Amino acid sequence: MSKTIAINAGSSSLKWQLYQMPEETVIGKGIIERIGLPDSISTVKFGSKKQETIKDIKDHTEAVQILMNDLIDLGIIADYAEITGSGHRVVAGGEIFNDSVVINDEVAKQIADLAEYAPLHNPANAAGIRAFMTLLPNATHVAVFDTAFHSTMPAVAYRYPVPDKYYTEHGVRKYGAHGTSHMYVSQKAAEMLGKPLEELKIITAHIGNGASITAVDGGKSIDTSMGFTPLAGVMMGTRSGDLDPSIIPFIMEKEGIADITEMISILNKASGLQGISGISSDMREITASWEAGEARGVLAFEMFVDRIKKYIGQYFAVLNGADALVFTAGIGENSFFVRKAVIDGLSWFGLDIVDDLNVVGADGIISSENAKVKVLVIPTDEELVIARDVEKLKK
Amino acid sequence: MSKTIAINAGSSSLKWQLYQMPEETVIGKGIIERIGLPDSISTVKFGSKKQETIKDIKDHTEAVQILMNDLIDLGIIADYAEITGSGHRVVAGGEIFNDSVVINDEVAKQIADLAEYAPLHNPANAAGIRAFMTLLPNATHVAVFDTAFHSTMPAVAYRYPVPDKYYTEHGVRKYGAHGTSHMYVSQKAAEMLGKPLEELKIITAHIGNGASITAVDGGKSIDTSMGFTPLAGVMMGTRSGDLDPSIIPFIMEKEGIADITEMISILNKASGLQGISGISSDMREITASWEAGEARGVLAFEMFVDRIKKYIGQYFAVLNGADALVFTAGIGENSFFVRKAVIDGLSWFGLDIVDDLNVVGADGIISSENAKVKVLVIPTDEELVIARDVEKLKK
Repeated sequence: MSKTIAINAGSSSLKWQLYQMPEETVIGKGIIERIGLPDSISTVKFGSKKQETIKDIKDHTEAVQILMNDLIDLGIIADYAEITGSGHRVVAGGEIFNDSVVINDEVAKQIADLAEYAPLHNPANAAGIRAFMTLLPNATHVAVFDTAFHSTMPAVAYRYPVPDKYYTEHGVRKYGAHGTSHMYVSQKAAEMLGKPLEELKIITAHIGNGASITAVDGGKSIDTSMGFTPLAGVMMGTRSGDLDPSIIPFIMEKEGIADITEMISILNKASGLQGISGISSDMREITASWEAGEARGVLAFEMFVDRIKKYIGQYFAVLNGADALVFTAGIGENSFFVRKAVIDGLSWFGLDIVDDLNVVGADGIISSENAKVKVLVIPTDEELVIARDVEKLKK
Repeated sequence: MSKTIAINAGSSSLKWQLYQMPEETVIGKGIIERIGLPDSISTVKFGSKKQETIKDIKDHTEAVQILMNDLIDLGIIADYAEITGSGHRVVAGGEIFNDSVVINDEVAKQIADLAEYAPLHNPANAAGIRAFMTLLPNATHVAVFDTAFHSTMPAVAYRYPVPDKYYTEHGVRKYGAHGTSHMYVSQKAAEMLGKPLEELKIITAHIGNGASITAVDGGKSIDTSMGFTPLAGVMMGTRSGDLDPSIIPFIMEKEGIADITEMISILNKASGLQGISGISSDMREITASWEAGEARGVLAFEMFVDRIKKYIGQYFAVLNGADALVFTAGIGENSFFVRKAVIDGLSWFGLDIVDDLNVVGADGIISSENAKVKVLVIPTDEELVIARDVEKLKK
């Protein structure tokens, strides 16, 4: 009997999923939200039961302690020692980590040091790791990097056309994100298509509140839309994606924004669907507004689709053709309107969509049998990839 | 007998071309460089003759005076009054000018006021215009806007995913550039293909030291790679093109750059081919370095090609297929290596290239007869478009 816990720590949240391994059965999962804020919320689901607790949780260390107590109190585990592995999603692996790795003190320090590439996330990741290392001193702790899958990108893709020393001295390059998800769905797509991954060119569209699109050639990421940070690429819920850099000083002057950090924060938190629509960053609300024919909702929906189409076209160019396109993550898995608008606009490419297959909760191939390029919907499962990596690296 | 002069004024230069109209015969042309610097150079070509004069020229007004004196002294014209029209390339037309227009005092003021969208160019354009209006009070003066051809872009293309008010209050949107060139070569391509422009989807690649790519649907620009300013889009000689905006504060902190204007200046003047190669912003030198297998030259060449391919792929998506791809401008017209690398990488799209046709000075179709998507090289002629617009608007 061996249990592994997969952890995804955000700046004020901690998602977890507990697996029985190697069976890969989920025996409990939950999320702790509003960490560091009043009235933090801890939700635990196990079997058919659900428990929600509201109390102040001051930091990630306390969150982990509460989570472990809950596992005991709810009878999900009888003893901490049952958990023989913890796996942690880490946002930034820089150029140091090209694969998942067992965490020792040096690795933990390196993860903390990479915070300058992911100021909101890596410190939270590092705090979660430290808490588990303290509570489970005999378990194997593994870091699974969001950037690792993209470490196969060639320089032509990851370098920016800026002075050379910005890369050589400061590490300014494209690192990408959502790597675990892009890897998982591309592997799953090959299974579903019944072809060796090595022979396939796949474009994976991870479209959630954060969104990135990846060109996967023979199982390897060769380009991806997120960049030095997750601000880059397509339009997102609240993020702008790529921009003409000249806009920044122009807006700062016009709006009297003195601090560029504030400007970047606006591009991260008040742009994208939210900025255009003025209504919401949530695609469900934007879609309702688009269906109602409200001008700003229509524009937001259409721009969102336009930017996805453009990246798909780009990656057809980078791959010089593709065999399949995969939709995943919140919007990719659930918005049949976004999927339909994207695919209908790309009929020239040999993509198509069968309306009867393009439904909420779709899982599998949604293009016609004759489609030159197959379209798939695959629910992503980053937690499972994390648990598997822990299993692989356990002593 | 009616003569028209086409003027392209840069921040420190003034290019001119004098036409006999309506025959469209070039009867003289020249360039004045280093305006405002010591030892300005004025070059005049007429018939088989060439004159070069070096002397200090303090501003655009003086440059125009010297040019007009030369026309008389060299016997190209006998009297100022022979010139009945002047046409001026204006970089930024904002949302005010969607077509060429006869310049009166109000238009001249509007052009000057649009300087905030093109701080280096519009003041030079305005100075050139004022000088010609003074010297040729009875001629028709016409402004031909670099942005006008792109005024047909839909909002989905020209809006940025940033807070709504940046557009509604400050005019932050995509305006594009090189419009006259994209219009000219797309019209010419339709002629060469023997098909009505209205029925064609064409991608025009104006690749010079500045570079932009446009999706032309039925003769109308529906998207283009340059943006709010010419910094956006593909990698260029010294410009970065699109970037992850987060890079800006990161580099400013690492490099101790306090002023964002300086940062943007680096992205305009020390990035692109220059920044990556460390050798040159000139594609001829980069190509030599690439042929010699020098690492930074190879990377610069390959990144340049990669970014062009990506925009072509994007515009295949925006147009949902294309009938033709046109190369124009310095690199587009002359670099068979760049053309070949781009087209060879896009064979899946049905593009191909015939090596015997893909030569220096190519002019016409360079793809095979069976190519699903035709590839053309068309020397651009912005001056001719300007002269024609003047002729059209002359009283």
